[in-house]
Amino acid sequence: MNYNPLTEEIVKELESILGSKNVILDKEKMENYSHDETPEEYAHMPDVVITPTTAEQIAEVMKLANKHLIPVTPRGAGSGLSGGAIPTFGGILLSIEKMNKVLEIDYDNMMIVVEPGLVTNEINGLVEDKGLFFAGYPMSLLTCYIGGNIAENAGGGKAIKYGVTGQYVMGLEIVTPTGEIVELGGKNVKDVTGYDIKKLMIGSEGTLGVITKAIIKLSPKPKFATDLLVLFKDVESAIKIVPTIISEGGIVPTSIEFMDKLSVHTTCDYLNEHLPYQKAGSMLLIEVDGTNESVVELDAETIGELCLENGAIEVYVADNFTTQERVWSVRRNIAEAFMVYSPEQSLEDIVVPIGNIAKLMPEIEKISKKYDIKMPSYGHAGDGNLHTTLVKNPDTTMEEWFDIENKALKELYDAVYKLGGKLSGEHGIGLKRMKFMKDHLSETELMLMKKIKQAFDPNYIMNPGKIIE
Amino acid sequence: MNYNPLTEEIVKELESILGSKNVILDKEKMENYSHDETPEEYAHMPDVVITPTTAEQIAEVMKLANKHLIPVTPRGAGSGLSGGAIPTFGGILLSIEKMNKVLEIDYDNMMIVVEPGLVTNEINGLVEDKGLFFAGYPMSLLTCYIGGNIAENAGGGKAIKYGVTGQYVMGLEIVTPTGEIVELGGKNVKDVTGYDIKKLMIGSEGTLGVITKAIIKLSPKPKFATDLLVLFKDVESAIKIVPTIISEGGIVPTSIEFMDKLSVHTTCDYLNEHLPYQKAGSMLLIEVDGTNESVVELDAETIGELCLENGAIEVYVADNFTTQERVWSVRRNIAEAFMVYSPEQSLEDIVVPIGNIAKLMPEIEKISKKYDIKMPSYGHAGDGNLHTTLVKNPDTTMEEWFDIENKALKELYDAVYKLGGKLSGEHGIGLKRMKFMKDHLSETELMLMKKIKQAFDPNYIMNPGKIIE
Repeated sequence: MNYNPLTEEIVKELESILGSKNVILDKEKMENYSHDETPEEYAHMPDVVITPTTAEQIAEVMKLANKHLIPVTPRGAGSGLSGGAIPTFGGILLSIEKMNKVLEIDYDNMMIVVEPGLVTNEINGLVEDKGLFFAGYPMSLLTCYIGGNIAENAGGGKAIKYGVTGQYVMGLEIVTPTGEIVELGGKNVKDVTGYDIKKLMIGSEGTLGVITKAIIKLSPKPKFATDLLVLFKDVESAIKIVPTIISEGGIVPTSIEFMDKLSVHTTCDYLNEHLPYQKAGSMLLIEVDGTNESVVELDAETIGELCLENGAIEVYVADNFTTQERVWSVRRNIAEAFMVYSPEQSLEDIVVPIGNIAKLMPEIEKISKKYDIKMPSYGHAGDGNLHTTLVKNPDTTMEEWFDIENKALKELYDAVYKLGGKLSGEHGIGLKRMKFMKDHLSETELMLMKKIKQAFDPNYIMNPGKIIE
Repeated sequence: MNYNPLTEEIVKELESILGSKNVILDKEKMENYSHDETPEEYAHMPDVVITPTTAEQIAEVMKLANKHLIPVTPRGAGSGLSGGAIPTFGGILLSIEKMNKVLEIDYDNMMIVVEPGLVTNEINGLVEDKGLFFAGYPMSLLTCYIGGNIAENAGGGKAIKYGVTGQYVMGLEIVTPTGEIVELGGKNVKDVTGYDIKKLMIGSEGTLGVITKAIIKLSPKPKFATDLLVLFKDVESAIKIVPTIISEGGIVPTSIEFMDKLSVHTTCDYLNEHLPYQKAGSMLLIEVDGTNESVVELDAETIGELCLENGAIEVYVADNFTTQERVWSVRRNIAEAFMVYSPEQSLEDIVVPIGNIAKLMPEIEKISKKYDIKMPSYGHAGDGNLHTTLVKNPDTTMEEWFDIENKALKELYDAVYKLGGKLSGEHGIGLKRMKFMKDHLSETELMLMKKIKQAFDPNYIMNPGKIIE
């Protein structure tokens, strides 16, 4: 696509639509909007940052951008891990930060209506009193925006029981790339009235429109939780326990987090944590929750027994805040522990069928050895979603690292696809994984995606360079 | 669209693709395929019925149909309630009845891979031993096909706890309207690798492609269930209890079925059932299930108490098979009870936000009085999904009835939309509700649906006359 440069005239039109305080041209201020949480080599400066406050303003901006062929990149809190909000082609960066109002809390329907710029966890604070919570929350819920969660269909550590963001999005108001405002879905629990365009919007990374309002379903908040830290001698026995717990035990845990040997050892050393990890080839951190204390206890007990009957070396029960914090801190500090070794990393988000995690691990080890890099794997075993991380060997140059990263990723994704997996489970394609789409998706699937993009955004101005080339 | 007639030459090509035993031209045999469970005025004969056995055959048929501009209408078991499988424009009726194999039961991933023509309940029979079941099942699961369930995103009476079909569809193989075979999704629990085309296919009523394979997620089967039949003096108090049970009680029931006064009275008379319904303005049938017997009992007790504290007249507990059958038989026999009064009916599938059911009831009563027809309302209160039924007054002629039906439906849908509702919760638009799409959906939403249809099916040959005009 040939986009046009931003002219002074267009800036004036933006100011007349949005008011001058919502149009930012200051380079220093714009720098903030040039990146998300991906490494800085992905950063790109926008030509202008706008902070609209209404859907009507956004509709006008979209019409203007179509007229002049200027790219528009929507952005939430910038906590993304795939570069989805980076304005790769410059143009207009549309920050939803000022659209952060709670529009309605509807207890009769157990739903909340919010603007997209609301920090996700604020929902929980508001409805806690009524015994409710937003069950689709991602790991970054203290900083991320709900609009970004929807655009990325963000997951998290509790997806095995509660599913991901999309499951709780009942309705959306969006501004289409051509500047129409449309309401999709609503407060109806069931709805088969035509195509489910709302579901298509979820996870489309801001390439099919701007979310300006969301109706979110609330769920009963569990009152009790217990964590189990389970040591296994190898990956196979750790992974095999997942279907056993669910089908034989009849229990769907809240979380089943996996940590491989390398992750556990490095992090325990870093934290000076004295868990008897030496014997363990891998660890699971299993959480159960519920509204009834004795049932939660019973579930934890059943899971512990099933683990011990099926090859676990040891089961630690953490049923109070202190011990729970201790076991979760190992899981939470993995990335930081490896930062000490080398800050140059590629945090991946691969997903495979749960049953294939064990088959993937030797493939990862092979790649790690071949390229002489560390590749710790940890993440959401209950969902088959691993945050395998490529960590640069401090002895190599940056140039060598970029080359190694590229080759190792290609091989990693090849292995993942051979096992029926996908590029990304919850972080998205964004900018970071664009180059791998063609190698790993079928021509027909890519063609259908392209046709959908064209149907919504004929001029390719909406977050260009993401998902579709 | 101008479709071409089926020529002898095209029939020969079909026979060469499918084998002559899979090409049916016999009028008597074809009659079966001219209707589903909607009234006979919607029926339409196909020009040919085909029963392919592979995706490759279907792909070839689609290419042939595009070349000659012949409509193709896919069909499952014909148990649909909106006319979605009726070949409105004649042409090729594609029955998936011979594609009924179970391809894989994958216990490690708790998934089953099936062909679309499998009777839905067969899944449950196959995986019961391992403590698993398909949680997205519709009311007609003994006869319907899983492919039809997916095409319609079928719901059912247990959606409040388990959601609808779509939630359990992990992967699909489809043949596009232009004859490409494509795999969408897979066995990955999380997946944000590009647009979620699979979700768009679910509920698209066979207008965007033919489903040829599905990967279905299985869930742990609850071991115990208890039913409560709760009598309320009016609709308001019955509906108000739904959010109370979930947020205050912290319990998500398996079913919350609603029956209005007219439904209960007529059905109890028909069944000679002596429930003390005279005092009741409405009834709820509430089911709780779980893996732990004492928890299920406790949940039922809590719900019973909450009901009595919040205006229920009486609570009957049915915790054994005999009493459960007795209370459910009232719910199941409503349609039959009204058949005695008049077989000419329009079974609707309206959905409103749960909190608005009580506001809808007086509107329904107004319409019923205005047109002198009976309009019993019953269905899934926990989902806001009511099968309000228009029952012809035996004193009016058929001509009058069609006029009344049309006008009364228009007013019913107007009332539903004013309350934030939709045309259909689980039965689909099909042929039956096409004429109401334009009145009740926004121009932009219809335009986006049309663009999606064009992107997938440029020649409009795939199930024409459904969803999109």
